[in-house]
Amino acid sequence: MAAKYVYFFGNGNAEGDASMKNLLGGKGANLAEMTSIGLPVPPGFTISTDVCTYYYANDNSYPGSLQAEVAANLKRVEELMGRTFGDPANPLLVSVRSGARASMPGMMDTILNLGLNDTTVKGIIAQSGDERFAYDAYRRFVQMYSDVVMGMDKHVLEHLLEQKKEMKGVHLDTELTATDWKELVGAFKEAIKAELGQEFPENPHDQLWGAIGAVFGSWMNQRAITYRKLNNIPADWGTAVNVQSMVFGNMGDDCATGVAFTRDPSTGDNYFYGEYLVNAQGEDVVAGIRTPQPINLHQKKPGDLPAMEEVLTDCYAQLANIRTILEKHYKDMQDIEFTIEKGKLYMLQTRNGKRTAKAAIKIAVDMVKEGLIDEKTAVLRVAPSQLDQLLHPSLDPKAEKKVIAKGLPASPGAASGEVVFTADEAEAEAKVGKRVILVRIETSPEDIHGMHAARGILTARGGMTSHAAVVARGMGKCCVAGCGDIKVDYKSESFVARNGQLVKKGDVITLDGSTGEVMLGEVPTVSPEMTGDFATLMGWVDQNRRLKVRTNADTPHDSKVARQFGAEGIGLCRTEHMFFEADRIAAVREMILSEDLEGRQKALAKILPMQKGDFIGIFREMKGLPVTIRLLDPPLHEFLPQEEKDIEALAKTMGVSPQQLKHKVEFLHEFNPMLGHRGCRLGLTFPEIYDMQVQAIMEAACELVKNEGFTIVPEIMIPLIATVAELKVLRANAVRVCDEVIARYGVQVEYLIGTMIELPRAALTADEIAREAEFFSFGTNDLTQTTFGLSRDDAGKFLPFYVETGILPEDPFVSLDQSGVGKLVKLACELGRSGRDKIKLGICGEHGGDPASVVFCHEVGLDYVSCSPFRVPIARLAAAHAALGGGTDLTK
Amino acid sequence: MAAKYVYFFGNGNAEGDASMKNLLGGKGANLAEMTSIGLPVPPGFTISTDVCTYYYANDNSYPGSLQAEVAANLKRVEELMGRTFGDPANPLLVSVRSGARASMPGMMDTILNLGLNDTTVKGIIAQSGDERFAYDAYRRFVQMYSDVVMGMDKHVLEHLLEQKKEMKGVHLDTELTATDWKELVGAFKEAIKAELGQEFPENPHDQLWGAIGAVFGSWMNQRAITYRKLNNIPADWGTAVNVQSMVFGNMGDDCATGVAFTRDPSTGDNYFYGEYLVNAQGEDVVAGIRTPQPINLHQKKPGDLPAMEEVLTDCYAQLANIRTILEKHYKDMQDIEFTIEKGKLYMLQTRNGKRTAKAAIKIAVDMVKEGLIDEKTAVLRVAPSQLDQLLHPSLDPKAEKKVIAKGLPASPGAASGEVVFTADEAEAEAKVGKRVILVRIETSPEDIHGMHAARGILTARGGMTSHAAVVARGMGKCCVAGCGDIKVDYKSESFVARNGQLVKKGDVITLDGSTGEVMLGEVPTVSPEMTGDFATLMGWVDQNRRLKVRTNADTPHDSKVARQFGAEGIGLCRTEHMFFEADRIAAVREMILSEDLEGRQKALAKILPMQKGDFIGIFREMKGLPVTIRLLDPPLHEFLPQEEKDIEALAKTMGVSPQQLKHKVEFLHEFNPMLGHRGCRLGLTFPEIYDMQVQAIMEAACELVKNEGFTIVPEIMIPLIATVAELKVLRANAVRVCDEVIARYGVQVEYLIGTMIELPRAALTADEIAREAEFFSFGTNDLTQTTFGLSRDDAGKFLPFYVETGILPEDPFVSLDQSGVGKLVKLACELGRSGRDKIKLGICGEHGGDPASVVFCHEVGLDYVSCSPFRVPIARLAAAHAALGGGTDLTK
Repeated sequence: MAAKYVYFFGNGNAEGDASMKNLLGGKGANLAEMTSIGLPVPPGFTISTDVCTYYYANDNSYPGSLQAEVAANLKRVEELMGRTFGDPANPLLVSVRSGARASMPGMMDTILNLGLNDTTVKGIIAQSGDERFAYDAYRRFVQMYSDVVMGMDKHVLEHLLEQKKEMKGVHLDTELTATDWKELVGAFKEAIKAELGQEFPENPHDQLWGAIGAVFGSWMNQRAITYRKLNNIPADWGTAVNVQSMVFGNMGDDCATGVAFTRDPSTGDNYFYGEYLVNAQGEDVVAGIRTPQPINLHQKKPGDLPAMEEVLTDCYAQLANIRTILEKHYKDMQDIEFTIEKGKLYMLQTRNGKRTAKAAIKIAVDMVKEGLIDEKTAVLRVAPSQLDQLLHPSLDPKAEKKVIAKGLPASPGAASGEVVFTADEAEAEAKVGKRVILVRIETSPEDIHGMHAARGILTARGGMTSHAAVVARGMGKCCVAGCGDIKVDYKSESFVARNGQLVKKGDVITLDGSTGEVMLGEVPTVSPEMTGDFATLMGWVDQNRRLKVRTNADTPHDSKVARQFGAEGIGLCRTEHMFFEADRIAAVREMILSEDLEGRQKALAKILPMQKGDFIGIFREMKGLPVTIRLLDPPLHEFLPQEEKDIEALAKTMGVSPQQLKHKVEFLHEFNPMLGHRGCRLGLTFPEIYDMQVQAIMEAACELVKNEGFTIVPEIMIPLIATVAELKVLRANAVRVCDEVIARYGVQVEYLIGTMIELPRAALTADEIAREAEFFSFGTNDLTQTTFGLSRDDAGKFLPFYVETGILPEDPFVSLDQSGVGKLVKLACELGRSGRDKIKLGICGEHGGDPASVVFCHEVGLDYVSCSPFRVPIARLAAAHAALGGGTDLTK
Repeated sequence: MAAKYVYFFGNGNAEGDASMKNLLGGKGANLAEMTSIGLPVPPGFTISTDVCTYYYANDNSYPGSLQAEVAANLKRVEELMGRTFGDPANPLLVSVRSGARASMPGMMDTILNLGLNDTTVKGIIAQSGDERFAYDAYRRFVQMYSDVVMGMDKHVLEHLLEQKKEMKGVHLDTELTATDWKELVGAFKEAIKAELGQEFPENPHDQLWGAIGAVFGSWMNQRAITYRKLNNIPADWGTAVNVQSMVFGNMGDDCATGVAFTRDPSTGDNYFYGEYLVNAQGEDVVAGIRTPQPINLHQKKPGDLPAMEEVLTDCYAQLANIRTILEKHYKDMQDIEFTIEKGKLYMLQTRNGKRTAKAAIKIAVDMVKEGLIDEKTAVLRVAPSQLDQLLHPSLDPKAEKKVIAKGLPASPGAASGEVVFTADEAEAEAKVGKRVILVRIETSPEDIHGMHAARGILTARGGMTSHAAVVARGMGKCCVAGCGDIKVDYKSESFVARNGQLVKKGDVITLDGSTGEVMLGEVPTVSPEMTGDFATLMGWVDQNRRLKVRTNADTPHDSKVARQFGAEGIGLCRTEHMFFEADRIAAVREMILSEDLEGRQKALAKILPMQKGDFIGIFREMKGLPVTIRLLDPPLHEFLPQEEKDIEALAKTMGVSPQQLKHKVEFLHEFNPMLGHRGCRLGLTFPEIYDMQVQAIMEAACELVKNEGFTIVPEIMIPLIATVAELKVLRANAVRVCDEVIARYGVQVEYLIGTMIELPRAALTADEIAREAEFFSFGTNDLTQTTFGLSRDDAGKFLPFYVETGILPEDPFVSLDQSGVGKLVKLACELGRSGRDKIKLGICGEHGGDPASVVFCHEVGLDYVSCSPFRVPIARLAAAHAALGGGTDLTK
C-alpha cells in the first residue's frame, strides 16, 4: 500500500484524531477530533508532517502520490460544501494554515480566502449578495498571499491603500466602497508584477500549491530555525499543512460569529457563558470595535442588545447541545469559537478554557459531584501557581483606584497605609497602631524590623529576587519592587511618581503586589477564603501526595501562620534574622567588634538566652513537628552599618571610636560577599558562635521535654559546607555541646545534625558528606548562584534580557534549572544515599514553593520541600500533581 | 600453618623486604630491605600490622602465638649481638618504635634503651667502661618510658632534674656526674610510685610488653584518630612495632655517629659527602652543639678536625663500599645514617636523599651516563616543582644582604631597583632607563603598565593568589606580596619596615621572590642557566610526554619568552589587558560611557586597529602555532576608577561632568562582581564589543595569510558560558563576522570557535555545549571559585586557617582540587566527547603550571595545558612524569 499523506475531516468523519499530534500537528489533530465527535466543523484535510520530512530529504520536492491525494481530498470537501474550487458560479474558498507538533512562532501562520480570482470573486458576490464584502475579501487575500507566498514588500501595497483613502478623502477602511476595493485589487496586482516581475497567480490550484510550498518553506526560515535551536525542537519533526473550507460570519444578518465558555471562567458557576456578534468576522469579537452581545438570557443585562438565544434560536439550541457534548467528551470546561454562515452553525475551535483560581476550584469540585471526573482528576485540574491568587487579601474588584506607578509584582496581596521612609519609623508608627507602607530605594537586612512592622513594601530598585521581594514573600507580605516609576528622596521624605504625583511621608497609598500597581489613597480589599470548595479540594490534595511540605519560618508567628496553611514542619529556621532584632543587635555588634575570644564569649552570653527564648517559642508552635535550624550564615559585615554617617552614629551609641568601627567595617569588607567568609567558615574560625547557638537550641529542647513533656528532635543544620572535613570538625563540636546540655538536664533528647547542600562541591562529594550528615537540605538559591556563576543581586542587568530572548526559559531563581542545577541535586541525592542509606533529603530554597520545582523534587525522591508559609498550599497541590503524574499547568 | 606475626631482620637475613610496607609499616620494611642487601643493620624484628588489627578486634588482646614468636625472635637477636636481654653481666638493650604504612604524627614514636634496670645497668657499665654514660642512659629510659607507657606527668621528673642541678649549682646536664644520675634514677622511681601508685617495672620483659602495648594503644589515641579522619586513613590499616637492638656511638673514642649523602646534595657532584662526630649520639650531629667533622679528605678544608677517612680508616673504607652498594641497589642518591660502636659500623637508615634542583638534574643526567638508570627514570628523578628555582635570576649566595622585612614568596626571582609608589611613576622612570621596584598596598588592573615597567613588585596586602601575585607570575616577574611587615604611606611616598627602617621614594631595595625577603640596597644576582644538563634532560622530557604545553600570554613579548621556554602555542590570550594600555583606555572608557549603540560603535572603531595590531604581533611570534584568544571577560566597571578623586580627574580629561561619570560608576557597581555582568553576558547584551574583537582577530589572521604566507587557525574563545543557548547566539554572531572578513580578504582561513568551561553549569551540560564548541578550555580559577563558593579575593580570612588545620590539604587555587573541581572537569571531558567526538580539550587556569594538576590533566585526557611562560618547563616535566606514570615529588 502506498504511504498515506493526506488526512480528511468533515461531516462527522475524520481520518485522524487527537492522539495523532505528531503526524497531523496540534491543529490538524484537534480539527479531526472535533469532527469525529460530530461537531459541525468546516470540512478540510491535513497534509501530514511526513510530507515536510520528505520535502527536505528530497530537495524540496513532494512524494509522487501527493498531488492525487490532495485532489481527491479537495473533491470530498467540494462535495460536502456543495461548492467547487475555482468554479466561477459557486466557488469554494479555503484557508491554508501551518500546524506543527508544538506551536511555533516564526513560521507562516495563515492564508485566508484562497481560491479568489477575477472570475470566482463574481461567484462570491452571487453567494453573499454583497459586492463590497467580496472585493474586500479578495484584496485581503492578494495582500496576504503576495506577502507570505511571493515575498512582496507589504509596505508597497499598504501605501497604495493609503493613497486611495487620501484620494477619496476618508480615514477608515470601512468608508471605502466595492468599487474602491475592486480598483485596489487591480492596482495591487500591477504593483506586484512591477516589483517581482511575475503575475499574481489567477489559477486557484496554483494558489493552493504556492501556499502549501510556503508553509513547508517557512519551517526552515531563519526565525523558525533560531526558535527551534533555542527551544531544542528537532528540525525533523516538520510541520503539517491544514487546508479547510472557509466559512463567513459576515455575509449578512443570518450570519454571526462568537466565542463561549461552557461554564463561567471567572466564578466557575455552571452556566453557558459567551458573546457573539451578528454579521461579523471572528476578529471583530475580540477587536472591541463593536460591543459583543450575550449569547443567552441568563447573562443578559438591561440595555444589552438581543441575546443569540432570542434572535438565532435554532443555532443557539444547537450550540447549547454542543456544550453538553463537549463537556462529556473532554470532561473539562471548554473555550469554543463558532461561526454562523447563513443560518448554519460551524465550530472552529474548542480547547480547555482558561479560568481564575476560584473558578478552577469550583469547576473541579462541581465536576466530581456531577460524576464527570474523579477526585484525582479534580486535583490535577487546579494549577498550583494559580492558588497564589487566593491566599492573600486582594483589592476589591468593584473599588475605584488611581494608579500612579507600576513596579514588579514581587509579593502578592494588597495593602494600604501611610508612607514612611525608614524601618525605624515604620516600627515606631506601627507601635502606635498606624498602618504603614515602607518605601525604600532598596532594602537590606537592617530593614527587617521595619518590613515586619509595615503592611506592605515598595522599593524603587531591585528585581523579583531582590532582598525586599524575597523577604516580603517569606513574610507573606505584599510588595511592589523595582518600581522605576518613582523617584525616592530620603532627604525631603517624599517620592515623585513618573506622572508627577508627589507623595509625602504620611500620605496614604495602596499597593497591589499581584499586579505591581501603586495607587494613591486607600483602596478597599477583600480577604481570602480558605473554606468550602478550597478546603474540599485540599483534602483530596493531601490524600494524593507523597512529598511532605514544610515551611521556612524564623519566628513563632510565621510558624503559626504556616501551620494554618498546612505546613508539616519547619525546613529552614534562619537564626540570623533573630540577630537583627532591636534588643540583640547591640550584643551581636559587640561580639563582632571584640578583638579576642573572651570578649566574643561575653557578648554571646548575652545573646544565648534570647536565642533560646526564640527556639522555645518556635518549638511550642510546631508541637513536635520537625524543626530544622540553620546556624549563622551571613558574613559578619551584614550586621554592621556601611555608610559613614551610620558608622559614626553607631560608634557613639557603642562607646567606641568611629575610627575603630570604621577600621573594622573596612577590615570586614568583601569583594564578593556571596563567596566570602560566611556560613560554616565563620563556624570554624569562630567556633564559640556555633557553640552558643547549639547550646540555645538544645537547652530550649531539653526544657520543653523536661517541663512540658514535649517530643522534639531538633535538626541542627550547618550551612555552606564545601568539604566533608569542614563538617567533621563542626559536627564534633556540635555533638560535644549537645551531649553536654543533655547530660546537664538529665533528659532523653535525640537530635540530628545535617547540612545544607548549596555549593557544587558539596553536591559532587555528597557521598563523603553524607557519612557525617543525618540529613541534607538543598539550598537551591545559593546552589543556583554558584552553579550559574550568577549573583541574584547583580543579575538585574542581564537576566531579564536572557529570559526575554529565550536564552533562559525562565528565571532560574524562580523555577529550578533542572538541566543544570537539577542535575547536581539529582547527583547529590544518589551520592548521598550511597553514603548513608536512609539519609533525610529536603529542599529549602525559594524553589520549594515553585510548582515545577516541586514536581522535580518529587521525581528525584526528596522527603520534603520547604517554602514560605503563604506558598505551603501551592507546594501541597504541586506535590499531589507530581504524585499523580500530572505536572501540566493549565494557565501557561 | 599458624599465622606468622613477627618478622626477623639481622646479619644479612630478613624475612621482609621493601615491598611489604602494608604488613610491616614503612620503617619495618626499610630495615628489612637494608638488612637483606647485606648492610650491617643492628638486628631486630617487626611485629606486623596484623597484630594491631587483631588487638582491636579482640578486646585489646594478642594472638595466642605472639608471645612465643617474640621470644624466639628476641633469642635470635641475642645470639647475633652476643648479649642477653636482662643479663646483669652482658645485657641486650633494644629500642621500640611504632611504624605505620603512612607516617602519622600523634602516635607513640620511640622508646630507647629498653632493658635497663638496677642490675643490667651494671652490665652496661662493664660493656662501656663508663658509669656516667650508663646512668645517663638509664635515667633517660625511665623518663621516656614513664611518660609514654605509664602516663606519668613528665614535668614532675623534669622538676626533679632542675632541683638537682640547682642543688649542685650547675646549669648544664653535661655538668652532672654518674652519681648525680644514679641518684636521680632512684628519685624518679620514687616519684613515679608516689604519683601513679605502681612500681617502675624492673623486669625487662615486662618493660618490652608494656612498650608494645603502648604502641598499639597509641593507634587509637585522640590525636591519631583525628589525624586519620582528616587524612582519610582507614583505622583498620593498623601500626607495626619495631624492636631493634641498641647500638651506641658514644661509648668512647672508638665510637662515632654520622650522616652522609652518596653525592653532593647541593651541586650533584659525584663524590661521597658527609659529616661525623667521634664519641657522640645521632642527635649530637644535628643539634649543632659540637661542630661535625668531614668524613673524607675530599671535603676537608684547612682548619677542620681530622676526617673519618683518617682516624677510622677501616670503617670509612667499609662505609665507602656501602655507598657503592646502595647506589647500585637503589639506583639513586642516598641519604644515610650510621653509628660506629667500638669500631664496628652499623647502618641505621638509608633513604633517597633530598637535593637542590641543580643537583637533581646533574645526578639524573650523570646516572644515565653511568648506565645506572635510563632516560625515562632520569626524567622522573627531577621534581617539576623544583625547576622553578632554576628559571629565574637568583641572589648571589655569596653576597651580603640586609633583610628589613619578609612577605609571601609570590613570584620567584630576584630584582633590585629604586622604590616608586605608583604605576605611572614606574613607567616614567623605566622610560628614562631606571630600574624600579613598584611598591603598592595592593595592585589592581590599572597598575598593569607599571608592573610591566618595574623589575619587581612589593605589596603590603594580598595573598599568593592576589592580583599582584598572579599577574607577576604571569609576567615571570619577581614579586613579594602580602608583606605585613611594611606600612606604606602614599602621601609621604615612603614605607616603614617593622624594624623601623624608613624607605623613601628613590631608595634602592632588593626583592627575593623565592623567599619573600625584602632587603635594603642592591644585592647582586646570578642568571639562570638553561643549557648543558638542563637542556639534555628537557630533551628527554619532550620525548616522553603526550600532553602539549601552551602558555598564557597577552603580548608579543610574553609570547616570545614563552617560545624560548618551549611553549607549543598560546592557550589563553586575554584581550582585556590590551584594553588597559595607555593609548586605548581612553577609547574603552568612551565606549563604556556611551549611552547608545552608535556611541559605542564609534569608540570601538578606535580600538579595532589597535587590537588588530596586537594580534598581528602575537601571531607573528607564534609562527603558526595555535593561539586561543579569549574575548572580553571582566565587568566594565573594572575599566573605570572607583575613588571619588580619580573619578573627578577622569571626568576632567574626558570632558564629561563628574556627576555623570559618578552616576555611571554607581550604576555599574556590583555586589558580587565575580558573579556579575561579565564574560559572555557582556557579549550578549553588547554584541558590538565581541563583533569588534572577532573582526580584529580575523583581519589580523587574513592579513598575515595574504601578505606573509602564514598558516594560522585562530581559536576564538568565549568566556563564562553557563548554557548552550548563550553559546549558540554568540557563535552565530562570531561566524557571521569571521565569514564576512574572510570574504572581504578573499583568502582561505580556517578558524575554531570554542568556550571556557569555568562554571559548574557548563561542566554539567558539556554535552550540549560541545555541539556548539570546537574546543573547551577549562578555566579552573573561576571553576574553583564557583565550585567551592569561594572568592580568591576574600579567602584570605579563612583559607590559610583551612590549610594549616588540614581542612583543605592544599590551597585549591594553587593545586587543583581533584575530588571536587576535578570531578567536574572529568565529567565535562566525558560529556564533551559524547557531544563532539574529537573536541579539543585544554586548561588555562593557573593550575596548568602546577605539577600535580598537570598529572591530573594528563590522566583525564586533555590535549594540552597552558600556563604562564616561566612555568612552561615545569609543565613539560610534569607532563612527562604523568606519561611515565610517576607523579611523586621527591621534595615533598
